[in-house]
Amino acid sequence: MALVVQKYGGTSVGSIERIRNVARRVAKTYDEGNDVVVIVSAMAGETNRLVALTQEICEIPDEREYDVVVSTGEQVTIGLLAMCLKSMGYKAKSYLGHQIPIMTDRAHAKARIASIDESRMRADLEKGTIIIVAGFQGIDEEGNITTLGRGGSDTSAVAVAAALKADVCEIYTDVDGVYTTDPRIVENASKIEKISYDEMLEMASLGAKVLQIRSVEFAKKYGVVIHVRSSFNDNSGTLVMKEDADMETVLVSGVTYNKDEAKISVLRVPDKPGIASQLFSPLSDANITVDMIIQNVSIDGHTDMTFTVPRADYKKALQIVEAAAGEIGASEVRSDDSIAKVSIVGVGMRSHSGIASKMFQTLSQEGINIEMISTSEIKVSCVIDAKYTELAVRVLHEAFGLGNEDVKEEKL
Amino acid sequence: MALVVQKYGGTSVGSIERIRNVARRVAKTYDEGNDVVVIVSAMAGETNRLVALTQEICEIPDEREYDVVVSTGEQVTIGLLAMCLKSMGYKAKSYLGHQIPIMTDRAHAKARIASIDESRMRADLEKGTIIIVAGFQGIDEEGNITTLGRGGSDTSAVAVAAALKADVCEIYTDVDGVYTTDPRIVENASKIEKISYDEMLEMASLGAKVLQIRSVEFAKKYGVVIHVRSSFNDNSGTLVMKEDADMETVLVSGVTYNKDEAKISVLRVPDKPGIASQLFSPLSDANITVDMIIQNVSIDGHTDMTFTVPRADYKKALQIVEAAAGEIGASEVRSDDSIAKVSIVGVGMRSHSGIASKMFQTLSQEGINIEMISTSEIKVSCVIDAKYTELAVRVLHEAFGLGNEDVKEEKL
Repeated sequence: MALVVQKYGGTSVGSIERIRNVARRVAKTYDEGNDVVVIVSAMAGETNRLVALTQEICEIPDEREYDVVVSTGEQVTIGLLAMCLKSMGYKAKSYLGHQIPIMTDRAHAKARIASIDESRMRADLEKGTIIIVAGFQGIDEEGNITTLGRGGSDTSAVAVAAALKADVCEIYTDVDGVYTTDPRIVENASKIEKISYDEMLEMASLGAKVLQIRSVEFAKKYGVVIHVRSSFNDNSGTLVMKEDADMETVLVSGVTYNKDEAKISVLRVPDKPGIASQLFSPLSDANITVDMIIQNVSIDGHTDMTFTVPRADYKKALQIVEAAAGEIGASEVRSDDSIAKVSIVGVGMRSHSGIASKMFQTLSQEGINIEMISTSEIKVSCVIDAKYTELAVRVLHEAFGLGNEDVKEEKL
Repeated sequence: MALVVQKYGGTSVGSIERIRNVARRVAKTYDEGNDVVVIVSAMAGETNRLVALTQEICEIPDEREYDVVVSTGEQVTIGLLAMCLKSMGYKAKSYLGHQIPIMTDRAHAKARIASIDESRMRADLEKGTIIIVAGFQGIDEEGNITTLGRGGSDTSAVAVAAALKADVCEIYTDVDGVYTTDPRIVENASKIEKISYDEMLEMASLGAKVLQIRSVEFAKKYGVVIHVRSSFNDNSGTLVMKEDADMETVLVSGVTYNKDEAKISVLRVPDKPGIASQLFSPLSDANITVDMIIQNVSIDGHTDMTFTVPRADYKKALQIVEAAAGEIGASEVRSDDSIAKVSIVGVGMRSHSGIASKMFQTLSQEGINIEMISTSEIKVSCVIDAKYTELAVRVLHEAFGLGNEDVKEEKL
């Protein structure tokens, strides 16, 4: 008998019929002899509807009241799921953030979980009750409702699993698991059986939208095993867990891409202390996140700096940078918003050399120019012209042998 | 400077534009130098939508979880109204039942308020904050969400007003106040300036659907002055308050009617102890409320009993009564579901005689037969054939001089 935490996203609970499906799945897990705690999101579309209401009232809604409104989506789902299970003859009970309580900091709309009191849940589990917890929400020290930001229910689930020392935290979604790359681009992308927290973090932040990043950080910190799987079938999905010996034998686990960035270069910047700060402080003041930063070697006391920003902030960033470039005496600002970042990720890189050069070679063989490079211990990212994105992903996926052989054979 | 509690019903907050209107009205009251506490209902239609969701899941939803779901309607409205006031530059803060807290008993879907801790609200009022409270909801001792039943926001408002010892509890609705009778039937029905709690209770239970009965009982118990008025204009409405000398001079305050009952007669019932209980216990076991009961004088050791039940329960009641009638040896059961109850209400009756006979005479002059009569200190009710309802209401309204003279003159 295990303690299983299950999380169902908005699509999985998107209609009354789907909520019934979830109830059947929960009941099955319970009938197999497990203790079950379920975390649910709002029904698909509901959070958007609530956000739209707040924006009709005023352009920039007060954050405390925003959380009061948007947290109702999950409240509806937990009530419906609990009453469904009860009507099927199971003991079930819904819990809101304040009823557990799930304590967070005071950062409305992007709160972080500070602590979870597991005692009431534990007592109910001992009575054989299935527990249904509202995802996405908590309360601060003054009892105000807080929400964790989009995708926050993943973090709720992992945090509850950590508090209860659950055996596994199953995250149900509308795909079968984490794939070696986007199956819309590479037909024979294969499901990854298991992946380390660090790889998953790189995959998530680089564009694989399966899990909220923060939930993976949380899982890593508390050693929670996450099982990402589909709520529409019984296939086993992807385990996100502590790195093991098996994983190191895999050189590259996945290929990701991100087309949501733009590139800005500042040429002939006087190379002296404080220059970088003069350039980047105004961006940070404007809440623009700078991702890759590359500074070339200094020649004649001048250097070139290139960096990427979210494409949504591109125009605003360009204005700010042009003003700052004038002040620091740079010669020119160049920019490009049709770039893409492709990356390979894998813990195996740590102990194997030649991975990066294989990536560069593969891209070059296809005539794809590399505009920027950035590396970490377990990933290599290249910025390229956006029009080559799909080609680059496909050849890298092939070069590192990530394809599903079964699919390949079927195509022959 | 006064402490004003305002309650806005579902129609008054039925759209974003109407919520803005409510915010302006609240702001105006605040700008006039008052402390303001606002209680709001769910947006019109929202509670019905939520109830429908629960019924799609299962026919008889679990009551605890039902309350979790349906209480979200008010939560959305308080958040929207608070953020609207904040965007207008006012200090405002929303409160859910558990944040005050409003403590209730454990009777889900029809809970009764046990106590309200006014200390947090008081502290916020002292800081000049406008307080927005979710109507309809509270929590029980274990922190479970409870709801007060349909129309419960009226009771929330009166209870908050009582806890804060507010100067007045304004109940905003889509009509101008309490009328002498239904204006759809009598064109010159006039708005009542003030009415006693007891009269209002009789009016409410007899069919005038302006205030939830329980809220009036609560107001009476704690001496809260209720001001029923329209949220769509600035007219003064109806004050519901302690009886005063003025009120006694009015013989009849209003004429009400109720078409939602049906009549059942049991003939030649053996007149011996325990018979009434044998007849009515099975009805009460089936949760059928019996309203008027009339037992005729006994002849030959037998009597006739007639009573009314809600029309919705008519068929079920008839089956039960026919079974019971056989057991107790009654000769026959007769029934009629096309009846109406018309009533006159007024505290003046206590000190004036001849009111009831004037009512009987008025009906008789129009050839309307009276099938049952029941009286209390401040009301007289007659059961008549349903087809005469409008006629009866009109002639009684006229006979007791309740018409608005202005309207009459306009018609001449």
